[in-house]
Amino acid sequence: MSRPQTPVLAADAIIELVDLPDKPIVLIERKNPPPGWAIPGGFVDIGESVPDAAVREALEETCMEVSLQCLLGCYSDPSRDPRGHTVSMIYVAQAHGKPVAADDAASVGIFDPADISVPLAFDHEQILRDYLEYRNTGIVPAIT
Amino acid sequence: MSRPQTPVLAADAIIELVDLPDKPIVLIERKNPPPGWAIPGGFVDIGESVPDAAVREALEETCMEVSLQCLLGCYSDPSRDPRGHTVSMIYVAQAHGKPVAADDAASVGIFDPADISVPLAFDHEQILRDYLEYRNTGIVPAIT
Repeated sequence: MSRPQTPVLAADAIIELVDLPDKPIVLIERKNPPPGWAIPGGFVDIGESVPDAAVREALEETCMEVSLQCLLGCYSDPSRDPRGHTVSMIYVAQAHGKPVAADDAASVGIFDPADISVPLAFDHEQILRDYLEYRNTGIVPAIT
Repeated sequence: MSRPQTPVLAADAIIELVDLPDKPIVLIERKNPPPGWAIPGGFVDIGESVPDAAVREALEETCMEVSLQCLLGCYSDPSRDPRGHTVSMIYVAQAHGKPVAADDAASVGIFDPADISVPLAFDHEQILRDYLEYRNTGIVPAIT
């Protein structure tokens, strides 16, 4: 049977830096289009679980070994990625130490999630609003 | 840019029948391989959101108009589908009325989720264990 054509699948991790006061998060400045800052992540490989992809991409882009805490949601609006329909699974993760930009990241930044002053790529502004709500309430969105 | 090759994406809905005592759930008997009973669902179309796919597939297979309640989890073990690596987003849904088998469903059944006596396809036994835990606690799995 030929495999069906479905949206491209990505996995991202919102990384909380647990060694720093108030657990700020890591964002990367994208090296490739579309421009802007983004939650670290990338495409899932065939043969790799989605959580494994999120951990691998975080390591590749920020040099951090992250521990996934929970699934925040599945973001799948067909217009969310200008390159074509991409579905992203977003995890909340934690890490010790400090990030270093690598791979697709031109630079990394450390941010208070309630006060992000850089332009964000994709629908990551919406995702970080959902994350802030989760951080305040402990409840992940029912449906995204 | 050529699009990356990623796992195939599916969306399934565990349908709670709210008009019946103790809200039993709907499973379908598969018409196509692999054999067994399964949570209603199917592949996500390019250009369609994942929740929309879950609702569409539930309608196509069970003739029920479902309302999604929450995302139970993302199931992505590369070996979970013998046809090839398929990632399934599993939603909990509710519907009124009674299901009727259609499309890929050879038949439909109504089950107490704590007492399922039919053979299940894929990793749906694990998924229904996670669902039962959610049903008992109100908490979805952190990571699946």
